[in-house]
Amino acid sequence: MAERRFQLYDTTLRDGTQQEGLVLTVEDKLAVARHLDAFGAGFIEGGWPGAIPRDTEFFRRARTELDLRTAELAAFGATRKPDTLVTTDPQVRALLEAETPVVTLVAKSHTRHVELALRTTLAENLAMIAGTVRHLVRAGRRVFVDAEHYFDGWLLNREYALEVVRTAAEAGAEAVVLCDTNGGSLPDGVGAVVADTLAATGARLGIHCHDDSGCAVANTLAAVDAGADHVQGTAHGYGERCGNANLFTVAANLVLKRGRTDVVPVERLGRMAETGRAIGELTGVHAHPAAPYVGASAFAHKAGLHASALRVDPDLYQHIDPARVGNAMRTLVSDMGGRSSIELKARELGYEVSAGSEPVARAAARVKELENRGYSFESADASFELLLLEELTGGDLDQPFEVDAWKVGVERRAGGGVRTEGSVRLRVDGAPLSATGTGNGPVNALDRALHQALDTFFPELSRLELVDYQVRVLGSGADGGPGSAAAARVLITFTDGRRRWGTVGVDGNTVTASWRALLDAVRYVLLTERGADHRTGRRAAAPATAAAG
Amino acid sequence: MAERRFQLYDTTLRDGTQQEGLVLTVEDKLAVARHLDAFGAGFIEGGWPGAIPRDTEFFRRARTELDLRTAELAAFGATRKPDTLVTTDPQVRALLEAETPVVTLVAKSHTRHVELALRTTLAENLAMIAGTVRHLVRAGRRVFVDAEHYFDGWLLNREYALEVVRTAAEAGAEAVVLCDTNGGSLPDGVGAVVADTLAATGARLGIHCHDDSGCAVANTLAAVDAGADHVQGTAHGYGERCGNANLFTVAANLVLKRGRTDVVPVERLGRMAETGRAIGELTGVHAHPAAPYVGASAFAHKAGLHASALRVDPDLYQHIDPARVGNAMRTLVSDMGGRSSIELKARELGYEVSAGSEPVARAAARVKELENRGYSFESADASFELLLLEELTGGDLDQPFEVDAWKVGVERRAGGGVRTEGSVRLRVDGAPLSATGTGNGPVNALDRALHQALDTFFPELSRLELVDYQVRVLGSGADGGPGSAAAARVLITFTDGRRRWGTVGVDGNTVTASWRALLDAVRYVLLTERGADHRTGRRAAAPATAAAG
Repeated sequence: MAERRFQLYDTTLRDGTQQEGLVLTVEDKLAVARHLDAFGAGFIEGGWPGAIPRDTEFFRRARTELDLRTAELAAFGATRKPDTLVTTDPQVRALLEAETPVVTLVAKSHTRHVELALRTTLAENLAMIAGTVRHLVRAGRRVFVDAEHYFDGWLLNREYALEVVRTAAEAGAEAVVLCDTNGGSLPDGVGAVVADTLAATGARLGIHCHDDSGCAVANTLAAVDAGADHVQGTAHGYGERCGNANLFTVAANLVLKRGRTDVVPVERLGRMAETGRAIGELTGVHAHPAAPYVGASAFAHKAGLHASALRVDPDLYQHIDPARVGNAMRTLVSDMGGRSSIELKARELGYEVSAGSEPVARAAARVKELENRGYSFESADASFELLLLEELTGGDLDQPFEVDAWKVGVERRAGGGVRTEGSVRLRVDGAPLSATGTGNGPVNALDRALHQALDTFFPELSRLELVDYQVRVLGSGADGGPGSAAAARVLITFTDGRRRWGTVGVDGNTVTASWRALLDAVRYVLLTERGADHRTGRRAAAPATAAAG
Repeated sequence: MAERRFQLYDTTLRDGTQQEGLVLTVEDKLAVARHLDAFGAGFIEGGWPGAIPRDTEFFRRARTELDLRTAELAAFGATRKPDTLVTTDPQVRALLEAETPVVTLVAKSHTRHVELALRTTLAENLAMIAGTVRHLVRAGRRVFVDAEHYFDGWLLNREYALEVVRTAAEAGAEAVVLCDTNGGSLPDGVGAVVADTLAATGARLGIHCHDDSGCAVANTLAAVDAGADHVQGTAHGYGERCGNANLFTVAANLVLKRGRTDVVPVERLGRMAETGRAIGELTGVHAHPAAPYVGASAFAHKAGLHASALRVDPDLYQHIDPARVGNAMRTLVSDMGGRSSIELKARELGYEVSAGSEPVARAAARVKELENRGYSFESADASFELLLLEELTGGDLDQPFEVDAWKVGVERRAGGGVRTEGSVRLRVDGAPLSATGTGNGPVNALDRALHQALDTFFPELSRLELVDYQVRVLGSGADGGPGSAAAARVLITFTDGRRRWGTVGVDGNTVTASWRALLDAVRYVLLTERGADHRTGRRAAAPATAAAG
């Protein structure tokens, strides 16, 4: 990919941060930029220097702390104010002071916006665009112009919209990016307007879509089909209202389905899911599980019909090989999938079992019964594996310890801080022991008390660390009957420093539900690291094929 | 809409339930069906009788408990098994025993699926389709045929795919629904295949899309543009992997942007957001906040630039009037929106303030500082309003009570159940009082203790009820610096029986964070119901316009 004409332009750090609930520190922004660069974005828009103090700071730190290998950094800003000199416009000066190789200017191309929002004349708007672009180009910047509200503007006053594109291109803009700012366009309209604009102006065109009609990805593809070769989007489609075009989905569609290997190198696509996860961790706004290509559910199968057919040939039920985007197929355990899905999931976990066997039938029945009580094993592989191990061993699963009692207290004294203390009473090989621990909440305190009690007996437990937990309040009727009391489902994510697993607990009491999930995590680490494998037919390592237990 | 040729076919209760994490009881399914009927779906697919016991039960109960006004109920199933008689096929018999006016049959149209998954000949597959359709039509059913993997099948063997459509139509299927089962198609391909199939067969065609390329909605529109007039989708796009075509987005696009008023009556569209919320409550899988049309963020604005322009004319930044789909514009309070967004939000809440005023400047500064510590006011209107009231009253906001101390304990005794007890020590007008309460978790117990202590003094508090709470563990760095301790952000949703609000609390200790959000909820109900309005310039009722405080 020596010659890379196609421009993949990421605006996660600017337009993406308009997303509800997404707040990034400068540190976060630098880290996100590094991931986008590693993924292969051609341009990374870092923010709006001068307008947002945090963004000014970002560009200042980026100069020394950001060593981009693939991407060029872009600063975003507006054309100069009406009836002023570009040389004295403080906002334009801030753009230059950001010292980025690229500057992207937002410009009005919709006559009503010029008149009502900018409050200037159509002619002065053109002068603002031409003057600001020339000023930045003379200062050595590559300049892109985002033509805001272009598609709505084209419908209202085509001639003026086209004139904005011509003016920007003639002043030296490298590409003029047609923006569907309100996101209401549909693919046929986008394709027609891009084709018309290209024919009328000959300018190099880009596309910037929003998802208010649920068509941001398709609109972007329609624009590329019509001749645009600069595409803007954001990680996970972050953005205001319904979000921007999802850069991951767009890139994968262009490379894998349009054969546009100049969008991003095919081998970089193989780390897309990982990039998506890393960015989700940093922003706190994870990909929707159902997100195309990178979502946790994107290649997950639950249906019994599919589960049976998947055993025959996975390609029958997948549009692409998930490995091409760094994702993987998953089987979801649920009563809907029946014994086939239990068998598939067991094999995924490394157990050689058959759908017709007794243990699989018993496991399927228990999953069904627990799901009726509000459990969900789809994100709790470790709890499912414990259940499966119990059935494979015929109820004879090793119990490393027993629980007699536990309690936790949280107290804020008058004038003092808050103290959280948990305590447990357990038995190991019949011998009683108790321990207490303090923490920053009930689950944390109970976790520390368990470690305090058990780590000397089971050193492998010291690697167990809680990463996340989620509480979901289940409405009445979770157990199938109306009027039943509400319950809480707690999902705990934990790690042993190498891999991550999930456990689940359900109870009417939120702390009890958490305790159950916590206990499953502890039992899981102890059982899987202490040789339960020998007795259950689990393959010793991933590729082996021992007989069924 | 006497003549309603266009068929809007919902498969939330069948294909939608393949979604990861979505488990519906029979009760849930009946309730969802009622909402879909009220919204105006033409057909509701209830499940697969005979294959899934819960679905058999659903159809049994539907006969007496479901009084559909608009929609026809459909049972889903497969064509008869290879080399058997349709009259003795138990699965086909279960379809008839469901006693629905409509039956939808899934049929293979992809030669490899016929051979590898069905394990029969291409000719026998056609005989299975023809025989099963005829059998059901003779029994008085309207029959639709879902041609599975149609688009991939057409590419592999066009003649056979077309033959499947002809066979189904000639046997009496009312429409043949072309399914993009693996979801990998793009709009241009879908449009071309639908047009070719229509020209070659003359059959009435439907479309069923999945979102694996992020184009399910656009693919559906492309099919309708090419002549399909039966559209399948699910509420919120629920479905396996990346989900199905979102029925809400498709319906709104067709009615509002294609002028297809025969899809769903325009006045019914006005309750779409409400339908979406109700279904989200029932399934526990709420619409993505960024979901087009119905999402909580779909018409939410955060940017300062937009916030300023929105004051001039909301239509400048909205693709449709949100009222047309039953949604509403929202302003998100954030430091990014600056004073303009604080002003807009304050006005939305009924306060007459100006962006240039001192209280607004102080509120903007506090929002910024709290967001740096991990707070987020975007889903916590009540906490924001308290903050604003504090600034509007110059720190002189009425404090109905003071908190001296609180504690909560959760204990599981050996052999016993779990007991959770919370206690609080407060002062009302300087007089100390204390109370305890038990509950099903720390927040619930503290909530009951607060009620126990305060309800006699403040009877209006008895209406306060917690509806939901969410805990999010914020990574280190939430306060902007690396290495800082992790914190928890708790969002509480509460109601006074009429409206719902949210509050937010952040702390290193999860229970303390919950306590803060809880206290805000109590303070909010007391202040807004006890005449704080007089002293703060809040409009007495929604439409009044008192002077700024």
